[in-house]
Amino acid sequence: MSYEETFIEGRNAVTEALRAGKPIDKLYILDGCQDGPVSTIKREARKKDIQIKYVNKERLDQLSTTGHHQGVIARSAAYEYADVEQIMNNARKKGEDPFIFLLDNIVDPHNLGAIIRTANLCGAHGVIIPKNRAAGLTATVARTSAGALNYTPVAKVTNIAKTIEELKKEGLWFVCADMDGELMYRHNLRGPIGMVIGAEGEGVSRLVREKCDYIASIPMKGDIDSLNASVAAGVLAYEIVRQRMG
Amino acid sequence: MSYEETFIEGRNAVTEALRAGKPIDKLYILDGCQDGPVSTIKREARKKDIQIKYVNKERLDQLSTTGHHQGVIARSAAYEYADVEQIMNNARKKGEDPFIFLLDNIVDPHNLGAIIRTANLCGAHGVIIPKNRAAGLTATVARTSAGALNYTPVAKVTNIAKTIEELKKEGLWFVCADMDGELMYRHNLRGPIGMVIGAEGEGVSRLVREKCDYIASIPMKGDIDSLNASVAAGVLAYEIVRQRMG
Repeated sequence: MSYEETFIEGRNAVTEALRAGKPIDKLYILDGCQDGPVSTIKREARKKDIQIKYVNKERLDQLSTTGHHQGVIARSAAYEYADVEQIMNNARKKGEDPFIFLLDNIVDPHNLGAIIRTANLCGAHGVIIPKNRAAGLTATVARTSAGALNYTPVAKVTNIAKTIEELKKEGLWFVCADMDGELMYRHNLRGPIGMVIGAEGEGVSRLVREKCDYIASIPMKGDIDSLNASVAAGVLAYEIVRQRMG
Repeated sequence: MSYEETFIEGRNAVTEALRAGKPIDKLYILDGCQDGPVSTIKREARKKDIQIKYVNKERLDQLSTTGHHQGVIARSAAYEYADVEQIMNNARKKGEDPFIFLLDNIVDPHNLGAIIRTANLCGAHGVIIPKNRAAGLTATVARTSAGALNYTPVAKVTNIAKTIEELKKEGLWFVCADMDGELMYRHNLRGPIGMVIGAEGEGVSRLVREKCDYIASIPMKGDIDSLNASVAAGVLAYEIVRQRMG
């Protein structure tokens, strides 16, 4: 998977990019720059856990392509998405039943990265994420995926429920993780399968849930509500792996 | 589980606490304070991902107990540790075979929090961590544990290998996750058990590994090295849960 770096320069452009929620990985700020607009940028960046690097004017001038950085440059890394067809082809090439992760609005980039890492290691053929609201492929995701983003294709779709319907026509069954379901050990999770993981806290949305063939629950014995989303994805994915091996 | 808040006040005290790696959760800094020592503190805090809150002088004076905050107060939350005996009692009270997590140097507080969360939900009776090097119970751990820290006892021991030896005398078997082991599905993981999870990247240390009765591997089909430590802990823990249920 390749990615493209873009640089956003100048105070207004960077402020707007931050407000619009663009995937900014790193901010370069002129060392010693303390005025109002720069302070606002720094505050926003900290809220979003964006790495800030204080550099001298020479370094900023080097990075700048416009020559008008005004002491602030933001770097945004845009990773290339695959499409669903490429994921299906990935399974065909390997001569395996498709095994696909579908993430219904995972918003934490660390969780997204860890899930892509799990997808790679458990032999899934790709990961499908929704276009809106969810976390996209930023440098944080790439880093927490521990390199998996270079191997496991990630596709972005407009509507997860619609994608499920389309993939059902290609023979896939869909299982989602939800506390109300039957214990995961009791489902037959062999064959072409899509595994749906819901958002942190909220779980799988109703529309997506209704499209699933199986609702599988992970046994919960404890005092609190739910597993971390990337842990839940790992546990269910490896139940699928266990059944596919058997 | 209760915890105790302590406040560290003044530039030197806070700088030293940061250098010594004390578990600081939050820094209160006088808004507009920009001199050298404060900049150093801010830089160190950012490196360690410590939340910085800019406040006015009134707020700082309120927080201060010494009256000499010099514009900087650090809050450190120290959670109370259990001891190994309490964990064993927890199992006895429930009339269950002990099921204990042992973490061999997990350093990332997010991983530690997620693992404590998993321990709670999979019905483990407690978590044992080593005194040195590893992440301790900070506010970040408490937050990422999603409340599990209030229910699942965490004990700190000087030497994990020695603790394993002692617990063997009480009838526990020990399994550790390692790529070189036999597939986890092929081990008998029923009965009183301790699950050992190694450090991110390095895995289980040799001394600890040698004490384990079983080396269990999680099937890996991918292109990269290893699962995230909290995902690996979840996957192995739920294989133990599956076998204990069966």
